[in-house]
Amino acid sequence: MNGVDRGAVREAAARIAPYIHRTPVLRSHSLDDWIGTEIFVKADHLQRVGAFKYRGATNAVQSLPEPEARRGVAAHSSGNHAAALARAAATRGVPAYVVMPANASAAKRAAVLRYGGEVTTCDNTLEARRALLADVLERTGAIEIHPFDDERVIAGAGTAALELTQEVAGLDVVVTPIGGGGLCSGTCIAVAPIRVIGGSPRDRASTRADGLRTGLSGRTEAILHEHGVEQVVVDEAEIVAAMRVVWERTKQLIEPSAAVAFAAARAVARDGTLDGARVGVICSGGNVDLDSLPW
Amino acid sequence: MNGVDRGAVREAAARIAPYIHRTPVLRSHSLDDWIGTEIFVKADHLQRVGAFKYRGATNAVQSLPEPEARRGVAAHSSGNHAAALARAAATRGVPAYVVMPANASAAKRAAVLRYGGEVTTCDNTLEARRALLADVLERTGAIEIHPFDDERVIAGAGTAALELTQEVAGLDVVVTPIGGGGLCSGTCIAVAPIRVIGGSPRDRASTRADGLRTGLSGRTEAILHEHGVEQVVVDEAEIVAAMRVVWERTKQLIEPSAAVAFAAARAVARDGTLDGARVGVICSGGNVDLDSLPW
Repeated sequence: MNGVDRGAVREAAARIAPYIHRTPVLRSHSLDDWIGTEIFVKADHLQRVGAFKYRGATNAVQSLPEPEARRGVAAHSSGNHAAALARAAATRGVPAYVVMPANASAAKRAAVLRYGGEVTTCDNTLEARRALLADVLERTGAIEIHPFDDERVIAGAGTAALELTQEVAGLDVVVTPIGGGGLCSGTCIAVAPIRVIGGSPRDRASTRADGLRTGLSGRTEAILHEHGVEQVVVDEAEIVAAMRVVWERTKQLIEPSAAVAFAAARAVARDGTLDGARVGVICSGGNVDLDSLPW
Repeated sequence: MNGVDRGAVREAAARIAPYIHRTPVLRSHSLDDWIGTEIFVKADHLQRVGAFKYRGATNAVQSLPEPEARRGVAAHSSGNHAAALARAAATRGVPAYVVMPANASAAKRAAVLRYGGEVTTCDNTLEARRALLADVLERTGAIEIHPFDDERVIAGAGTAALELTQEVAGLDVVVTPIGGGGLCSGTCIAVAPIRVIGGSPRDRASTRADGLRTGLSGRTEAILHEHGVEQVVVDEAEIVAAMRVVWERTKQLIEPSAAVAFAAARAVARDGTLDGARVGVICSGGNVDLDSLPW
């Protein structure tokens, strides 16, 4: 049994409502044509900090009792969770300590600093990140907020899909990317019994979908299994093609990790099992390095 | 006296309503910070064919009496007007003949063909374009729809600003780019007596804002003069900076010509005359060549 249920997602939605954008649902006939069925894009690339991650970070930070919150929050992250946590902490007026690997992009580091987070840099290995985070936690007494292996974060992530189902009636399928599985876990909890598909890059270690360079935790794996989530693997070429099509046809700047969900929807549609289906896609983020585009 | 008044813009709005998207008005605190005042973005990069041009082309094509419409419509254009006219004609079920210079982008040519337009290619000079268009008009008997020096096109262009003022109360200023002046003319007619600012690239002949590589006609010049439009000139570096900021902060893919209006708003804000103002920006288009970005 995991402790996140639809009630927890609804509570998260109420808790974070004052702090987040209720992002729009976008439609594009041209995108429908490319994927091969009706697509409803939940535009969380337009969320604060440009990613759905702000939902989970905000739910976690706002859930903390005041004495704990005052100690601050901490995480290791090279990506959107870092910025999301820093901003969520700033909104509550508490410190954020973020351990970032040396190879994190300058833009991502700058975002954390802009929101007032304290950045500590470490080597690029997972071991180095964990070790330095342990030091930071000991030094500061801060509360760790894991990017996905955390019930508050998963419940917060699920609020995007909850809003989508409130806005669009009769969805047959919802598609998300899968990295650590937080977004997909929150989504299937929020929309059950609607069919959920999760897209992953074929090579997790080296994919350009930098938000997905990680694996499931025991908790997220159990949730996906419990809900019968279908996992679909896509190639780098499919990710790049999807990203470019979304840019060109919808004029929305989405990041490679978000493109994975569109690529997965197209791959499944090609198999014919989405014919006539109303398909929601959770567009997870829009933080792109404009100086190194993949085409 | 010119023949376009606010009534003509209202009539155009009613005529084109079944065919166009009523595009959203976007807000971004981060963009506000960069420009220095409150900005309301009328998102016509999300219009059909990715540009406001679809409004004027649709108004012109739908205005034609049936016998004229059946002869088809024609124009010379290297850009968004070509695609807009082809799609507007296809929607009415009549032919479109477009003369495009050899240096028009492959993407723009492909768009015209996709909408069923007939493309004739000519040399890159204005003289060659005019001569070949004259041939086409004689051969086909089609009606010429000029990209901006046409009352129906100007009235259609003004509908974007009309929608903006219907949605946002108390605007103090509206900013548009200026190329041939059709968008700015329609805008000042639609919103008078609200202050209107038009942004132009410093070097019209070679600017990367390819939609603005042209000059005012007698008609558009007279309209801008009559309404006291303030013209602001911006450098290429300002255009590129504005385009990049809009991409990064709003996740909206806008083309260089659209960025000119954001750059102009910022330039005027720097002078201090926009302090505390509510400023509408008509975001004219989102058709970008992703293979040659300016950074």
